[in-house]
Amino acid sequence: VFNRNLSSARRLLDDRIREMFYYLHAQKSTISDEITAAHVEEQMISLMGASERLDDADQFADTRSETLAKIASDIQKSIENLQNPSVCKNARALLCNLDKECGFGCQLHHVSYCFIMAFATSRTLVLRRDGTTWRYSTNGWSAVFMPLSNCTYEEIIANEQSATFTEQSESRIVTLGIVDGLSNKPLFLPLAFPSTLSKELTSLHSNPPVFFVGQFLAYLMRTNEPTEEKLRSVYRAIPFDKGPIVGLQVRRTDKIGTEAAFHKVEEYMKWTEFWFRVQERRLSANLTRRIFVATDDPTVVPEAKKLYPQYEVYGSTDIAKTAQLSHRYTDASLIGVISDIFVLSKMDYLVCTFSSQVCRMGYELRQAAGKDDGTKFHSLDDIYYFGGQHPHEQVAVEAHKPERRGEIELKVGDRIGIAGNHWDGFSKGQNRRTGADGLYPSYKVVEFWRTLDYKALSGCEDVAPEMTSSLLLVLLFVHLGFCQQPETLHDGEADFRWNRWEERTLDCVTSGKKDECVLLAPNSQNPPNPTTFKCRREPMPHESYNTLAANSTTRLACPIHCPVEFDLSVLQKRPYVNKNCQKYYTYGKYRDVKENQWYIWMTEPCVAAITTHCRFNDVKSAAAKLQAPPQTKPTENRKAAARS
Amino acid sequence: VFNRNLSSARRLLDDRIREMFYYLHAQKSTISDEITAAHVEEQMISLMGASERLDDADQFADTRSETLAKIASDIQKSIENLQNPSVCKNARALLCNLDKECGFGCQLHHVSYCFIMAFATSRTLVLRRDGTTWRYSTNGWSAVFMPLSNCTYEEIIANEQSATFTEQSESRIVTLGIVDGLSNKPLFLPLAFPSTLSKELTSLHSNPPVFFVGQFLAYLMRTNEPTEEKLRSVYRAIPFDKGPIVGLQVRRTDKIGTEAAFHKVEEYMKWTEFWFRVQERRLSANLTRRIFVATDDPTVVPEAKKLYPQYEVYGSTDIAKTAQLSHRYTDASLIGVISDIFVLSKMDYLVCTFSSQVCRMGYELRQAAGKDDGTKFHSLDDIYYFGGQHPHEQVAVEAHKPERRGEIELKVGDRIGIAGNHWDGFSKGQNRRTGADGLYPSYKVVEFWRTLDYKALSGCEDVAPEMTSSLLLVLLFVHLGFCQQPETLHDGEADFRWNRWEERTLDCVTSGKKDECVLLAPNSQNPPNPTTFKCRREPMPHESYNTLAANSTTRLACPIHCPVEFDLSVLQKRPYVNKNCQKYYTYGKYRDVKENQWYIWMTEPCVAAITTHCRFNDVKSAAAKLQAPPQTKPTENRKAAARS
Ligand SMILES: Nc1nc2c(ncn2[C@@H]2O[C@H](COP(=O)(O)OP(=O)(O)O)[C@@H](O)[C@H]2O)c(=O)[nH]1
Ligand SMILES: Nc1nc2c(ncn2[C@@H]2O[C@H](COP(=O)(O)OP(=O)(O)O)[C@@H](O)[C@H]2O)c(=O)[nH]1
Repeated sequence: VFNRNLSSARRLLDDRIREMFYYLHAQKSTISDEITAAHVEEQMISLMGASERLDDADQFADTRSETLAKIASDIQKSIENLQNPSVCKNARALLCNLDKECGFGCQLHHVSYCFIMAFATSRTLVLRRDGTTWRYSTNGWSAVFMPLSNCTYEEIIANEQSATFTEQSESRIVTLGIVDGLSNKPLFLPLAFPSTLSKELTSLHSNPPVFFVGQFLAYLMRTNEPTEEKLRSVYRAIPFDKGPIVGLQVRRTDKIGTEAAFHKVEEYMKWTEFWFRVQERRLSANLTRRIFVATDDPTVVPEAKKLYPQYEVYGSTDIAKTAQLSHRYTDASLIGVISDIFVLSKMDYLVCTFSSQVCRMGYELRQAAGKDDGTKFHSLDDIYYFGGQHPHEQVAVEAHKPERRGEIELKVGDRIGIAGNHWDGFSKGQNRRTGADGLYPSYKVVEFWRTLDYKALSGCEDVAPEMTSSLLLVLLFVHLGFCQQPETLHDGEADFRWNRWEERTLDCVTSGKKDECVLLAPNSQNPPNPTTFKCRREPMPHESYNTLAANSTTRLACPIHCPVEFDLSVLQKRPYVNKNCQKYYTYGKYRDVKENQWYIWMTEPCVAAITTHCRFNDVKSAAAKLQAPPQTKPTENRKAAARS
Repeated sequence: VFNRNLSSARRLLDDRIREMFYYLHAQKSTISDEITAAHVEEQMISLMGASERLDDADQFADTRSETLAKIASDIQKSIENLQNPSVCKNARALLCNLDKECGFGCQLHHVSYCFIMAFATSRTLVLRRDGTTWRYSTNGWSAVFMPLSNCTYEEIIANEQSATFTEQSESRIVTLGIVDGLSNKPLFLPLAFPSTLSKELTSLHSNPPVFFVGQFLAYLMRTNEPTEEKLRSVYRAIPFDKGPIVGLQVRRTDKIGTEAAFHKVEEYMKWTEFWFRVQERRLSANLTRRIFVATDDPTVVPEAKKLYPQYEVYGSTDIAKTAQLSHRYTDASLIGVISDIFVLSKMDYLVCTFSSQVCRMGYELRQAAGKDDGTKFHSLDDIYYFGGQHPHEQVAVEAHKPERRGEIELKVGDRIGIAGNHWDGFSKGQNRRTGADGLYPSYKVVEFWRTLDYKALSGCEDVAPEMTSSLLLVLLFVHLGFCQQPETLHDGEADFRWNRWEERTLDCVTSGKKDECVLLAPNSQNPPNPTTFKCRREPMPHESYNTLAANSTTRLACPIHCPVEFDLSVLQKRPYVNKNCQKYYTYGKYRDVKENQWYIWMTEPCVAAITTHCRFNDVKSAAAKLQAPPQTKPTENRKAAARS
């Protein structure tokens, strides 16, 4: 329906424009002239607006969101199936301790990691004692969220001994410790995501791993009615319907100097203002500046209000007070951080430090809702990561020779482990081929995603066979994705191929004899054999409008050895001005699907040399492949759990 | 089939990226640091490659070319009809003198201008004495080209007196003088093009006026067999099939210092090299550098070969010799300039000075072939123009406050008469509102095309009623374009509208009562009336797969007052996590085409507030309108001529 190639190419271009902006912004001081520096910034902002406008121009924006929403809802259903086993005491379960010794974001990420491991091994996630002991709340998990399962901890565990988690374990109950303590990293740790969804997700979303992680967080954070009630009153205070709002999360207090650097309000506001200016270009309208501020520092909201009188500032200093270390582990603080995270997830754009798990949660949750919001943030420090993740890797698509000290060399196809984006046009990482650590231009690489097969997603039970409307056809397509044979591991973005074009000239002029044509394929990688080349005479289809070839009963059709799955480039005839040859009337092209061939045809009085190009989508951007993991056959028990 | 909005937005973005490059390239010297300057250039080149790659990613490139080729062929047919009247002596004719006192390009442009005037007034173009007297050739027009008509000059003119051309003239024969001598500019002078094709052309081609002019040049320059033979041998010497070739046209001798400035070979080569570097990024491949040089200066080809040993240089010093003033008006020189122009028209990219008519002809001819090559050039001086044209105008889409001396102010919607693009990020022109002349950033305007109704194009005779295949459906669409009632004059690019989004929230929760919903439209320009707002209960369609709403027999459907012609944005429900509401199962949307309404529906157990946005494509980029010209009713005679 919509074009996957185009989506990916468009998203890449948008990213490249943003990287150009980062570079130019960072080099501002090398521009000797102030007027020029300001002009460059202004023009880049307009360019980013023009780039975002491409999304609005595409009539499929809605289809894309719906397809993404449907994928999300299918994942939710798969999770729900696993979480609600039909016989509690038979459930294969993974036991996880909610009360990790850290903040709310850290705890929820810990549980998400358990959840993903459970899902990957088709197990039901169980919180130890159903999360009744929790430093954030005397009433435990169920004080704010819905229970994770219709079975209780007692019903599922039923006094059975548990084994330590391994992906291959056959024990009914396994326990998973904190990710920091693992001696071997499980294969399914983020940033992996399902290979069966990889085609869809890489074209529909700019950050598929976050979309996937977000699904688990969304399930975990299903609020109960009292929480919902509190959220409603928080939402009411924020003018969601008046226009775009940017969410700032300013993490300070205990984080500063230990895990993150201090960032002034002005830094957050600089990127906020950039975003508003881009949106003004995108929409050709003036926008009222609105921000929502979440923070653990009670001075931030008053400061923002004072420094930026032209901004409407939302956000609660009371919540910020509860977020300080002295009050952090209280019920009030808990509802405060939950509501901050939900509000952040509903903002049109996020400016924060991804070193804070609170902001990352807001970012993750917004992806889960089924829109591609993967690029709708600016982090003042880290790129997105999930604690304990496998190395995040990229692939070079352009070569790089170091220009300054500290830069590393890239060859096309090199794999790079990225440590961070400096948001100045450069990223830092390690070239796996050379082992060298250092800086490289961010625009010269693409993502190398890890995709894996998740058993819990491969059931076909819920395909709707009677879907008929055209909208449902789109959905059906997604379902087919789920039901196809699980592919062996394949590499996500590395799946990406550049186009290559081969010329074909069918020359029926030079021989001077009737029906004697040669096929020229000068730049072919696999040239057609000229001695076996043969055209065929076939009946000329008769169309009443074709006056030019009204008397032709037959035509000459010649195979040109081009991939049938792609269109040919436009046909060009020689001699160029040639009254006898008129496209669609006396010459043309068609696909012969049975023979898997493109044909060019001519009929009297047309005799010409016709040139076209065929497309091969086969130029790899990367060479390496992930190794397939050892797959154990699912036991009967596991199958049952997956389907219940 | 393909998306017109998207094509236009994409083309605009590509243009904006190129303008960014021009600006940064021109500001190179303000960057104090050499490494940074080189890095900026490299990154911009990569960005231009990424932008061009969007074209390759789109599966409709071929469809676009074919549609364009079909439009070209239909225009050719309309021209052919006019040029070959059934009764020569009854033909309404326009008489034109080939032998204007100037060079070949100038003469052919003069004849093109006659041709366009003839076409606009549904007349047959006749060359005085069929072009037998011609300073370039003792044997006249037919020594190199095909005759323009199956009627001779004598047969058509038949001793009848001719009147001076006016667009309203009823005389059978009118004579048109040179454009420089006209006291009133005819309305149909370039850069006008047919309004019936405006939708197609503005989305399919980046320079519709040139595409249209090119059609007349292509018809004029239909070569005869001896010329064709000579061209074949010229073409054989150029390796068209080995990879891209850039065409350079270096106009010197009598032009320098009178009508144009001197440009060194290095200037041409700089832009040639940029282009090759962009293509290398686009194709992810190393490209052999190849150029073809056309020139009237015999020293250029040897100089290029010497200065650029890494380039394969094609082009004939012998031809350049015949192009010098002393030999210019000879048969050898004629065939030389013809072959240079044809070769230039077949190059992948052109670098030249548009002040020379020779290069402009190469550029015009390449458009005629039915590909969008409107951006495939770099002119070292002028932007494209057609001698004698109506003022070329643009419209501001972004405001501008002068930053330096010499710049002018722009307000959104201002009309600007453009004098030239300085290829440094700025254009020069006159703001029609303020009268001020000066510089403005090229990226802040869009083209304001003049479109008019051409009678010769509005015949419906050749629509094919039995077209059935999906390919032909595309063509049919174009035909419909031709056959629709000629619209009154409308403004081309000014037709362009930005999108605007209005929010709609259907809230069925707050009332607390069953089936009582309110429609919120906070930013609506035309808010729906809340007192008349009514939802309806209707039968729930039953689908066997819908287990969630298996027991619902009815659903609630509410009109949301959004334009039916555009998709809604994705539906978002509140509360967000809400098991009872699942898209497609217990809530959704549909179009009621009869009522011209979008509906949102919900069924038990779902009760929610659902938010979406509807699209209005109604934000104008310009306010002004061209005045409709006085249209005379065609006489019987004229109708006959148009149809014969
Ligand atoms: N309400 C609220 N609390 C915050 C905010 N930032 C930090 N906190 C509190 O501080 C804790 C920080 O720990 P954690 O969630 O692990 O995130 P991190 O330390 O920032 O990575 C949070 O869980 C909150 O309790 C904020 O913006 N709003
Ligand atoms: N063969 C050849 N002749 C040229 C070239 N440039 C100029 N000439 C000759 O010089 C004439 C220039 O006059 P004209 O065509 O009106 O173009 P202009 O003066 O460059 O705008 C041409 O018609 C040719 O006869 C060239 O690149 N190749």
